[in-house]
Amino acid sequence: MTEGMKDKSSFVLGYEDAVAGTGEEVRRLLKEAPLVLRHMTSHLSKAAGKMIRARALLACAIRQDGSINPDAVKAAAAVELLHLATLVHDDIIDNADKRRGIDALHKRYGEKFAVLCGDWLFCTALEHVSTADTFQPKQDTADRSFTRYLTEVCLGEIRQNRNNYNYRLSEREYFRIIRGKTAALFEACFNAGFILSEEDAAIREVYLEIGSNIGLIFQLADDCADYEASPKVIKKPVLSDYSRGVVTLPLIYALKKDKALSEKIAAGLKPDALKAAVEEAGGLRYAHGKIDRLYKKTLKAINFLDIDIEKRELLLRLLKKAAGIPA
Amino acid sequence: MTEGMKDKSSFVLGYEDAVAGTGEEVRRLLKEAPLVLRHMTSHLSKAAGKMIRARALLACAIRQDGSINPDAVKAAAAVELLHLATLVHDDIIDNADKRRGIDALHKRYGEKFAVLCGDWLFCTALEHVSTADTFQPKQDTADRSFTRYLTEVCLGEIRQNRNNYNYRLSEREYFRIIRGKTAALFEACFNAGFILSEEDAAIREVYLEIGSNIGLIFQLADDCADYEASPKVIKKPVLSDYSRGVVTLPLIYALKKDKALSEKIAAGLKPDALKAAVEEAGGLRYAHGKIDRLYKKTLKAINFLDIDIEKRELLLRLLKKAAGIPA
Repeated sequence: MTEGMKDKSSFVLGYEDAVAGTGEEVRRLLKEAPLVLRHMTSHLSKAAGKMIRARALLACAIRQDGSINPDAVKAAAAVELLHLATLVHDDIIDNADKRRGIDALHKRYGEKFAVLCGDWLFCTALEHVSTADTFQPKQDTADRSFTRYLTEVCLGEIRQNRNNYNYRLSEREYFRIIRGKTAALFEACFNAGFILSEEDAAIREVYLEIGSNIGLIFQLADDCADYEASPKVIKKPVLSDYSRGVVTLPLIYALKKDKALSEKIAAGLKPDALKAAVEEAGGLRYAHGKIDRLYKKTLKAINFLDIDIEKRELLLRLLKKAAGIPA
Repeated sequence: MTEGMKDKSSFVLGYEDAVAGTGEEVRRLLKEAPLVLRHMTSHLSKAAGKMIRARALLACAIRQDGSINPDAVKAAAAVELLHLATLVHDDIIDNADKRRGIDALHKRYGEKFAVLCGDWLFCTALEHVSTADTFQPKQDTADRSFTRYLTEVCLGEIRQNRNNYNYRLSEREYFRIIRGKTAALFEACFNAGFILSEEDAAIREVYLEIGSNIGLIFQLADDCADYEASPKVIKKPVLSDYSRGVVTLPLIYALKKDKALSEKIAAGLKPDALKAAVEEAGGLRYAHGKIDRLYKKTLKAINFLDIDIEKRELLLRLLKKAAGIPA
């Protein structure tokens, strides 16, 4: 072993290694959980996510010399656990049957243990991140602390649930919801990655804007997919949002254009008929227009950054992935 | 305003002011919550707790000159919010009707919002604590970080719930449960208070032991009270543990002494008959014996500390309160 490798903080880590390392760390944390809940965490470890949030953090964390601080892997693993914690609680709240193709945790182990397992994942993630010493909140950036972003995620979830079956939801309030429930965690990832990248503080806001926009695009594309795709493609039932009372942008626009629609819904409109009505009223076209504008804006911001070509490629790939454009 | 008062960190705060300030801060945080959940946090603010955890933190935080670092108020308020978050989730899990004399949150606003409100309280508490700059985890004390203790609390809760209706629960496992679900948060308070007290690091372990023991005594006394008191005194139904399947020390001992008891329970023993059987088998005497031994040990540790008389008095008062001894 060379002198350089002994000193962990100077150990050179590339992007792909860091992604693989994060996946391993998440699996390890789940598989080595205390015995009393290992049956639940083992179940969760069976279905891996696409780790888009971890990838966002790691891509941002790439330094000028192309290396990544090993703390980024810790932070990325923590973000994936946090995301998993929110999914576990979400599934209880939505009474969902499946998640990532396997039984939802509460369906297999009961709500009681799912609440507690979510709490444990949450605590463990925060504990994990607190062991990364370059990742402590600084006084001047307390408003960008990890926990602050998490509070935003909670608020977004609460806002969404408060507006279930609210067919008068405004576009403005919709964006407020998704800015919290989805974009806040993406922004947190970009913030953490930015800190670890050791880039100039002056450029921070650009990173944060890219992060938030990618989160918005990701959620908008997901909300459109609910009205477009076949169950096979999106791995969840089509129009699951509508049947759960979650009102998203394509429907909000359609309700504005087609004044008779809300009465039809109140009378019990079938999913297929709703799908046709949303399409007919231009709801999907409108939502895709929003995605396009955000996409162009974010593309410009990524091209503005003074970064090396590999890092730029990764950020662009992330943007495309969020928008659902094949790589 | 004098020069000294302008500098917040040198502002001299006494214990009673700090306790009052903590209560105000908790109420303010609940009352000024974002509008979307203020109806829930307002409900929670109607019933104040006794703030025994906040008091523990503040008493420990008293410095040699008798003053308290204002950050201690932030940390103490955060601890009370964290405790409140665990109560909200506990009540969902136990399907409890009442808490602190008012409707349990999930009974009034539904489980969905209670899960989310608990999550929000949790995030807000952690966010609040992260704004206290003297209260960041240090690398050498990462195993004593706030989040580490919280993970212990979660694990204790999970262990307890896994052992509901387990009438073969061992005394050893019982102590493992209460060390997590109750003693860990008390120890966290003593740890935080100790850090803020600026005392010598060599004395840290003594503080932690006192904190953990006071937590154990508090839980043991609470578990005994469930077999002793009338509903009026403990503000919750007598034998509520038994009816929820929570097996505690008086019952564990009675089951060991009275071999016929577990069969009687399986056949559906009425609470009054169980109460008599536990008393008859010496379960309460045994549990009180445990409390007494811990009490004496902790008394010794408090007297060992080189602290001023007011601080000692406060710690002794806390110990008595935990054991249920009138001041």
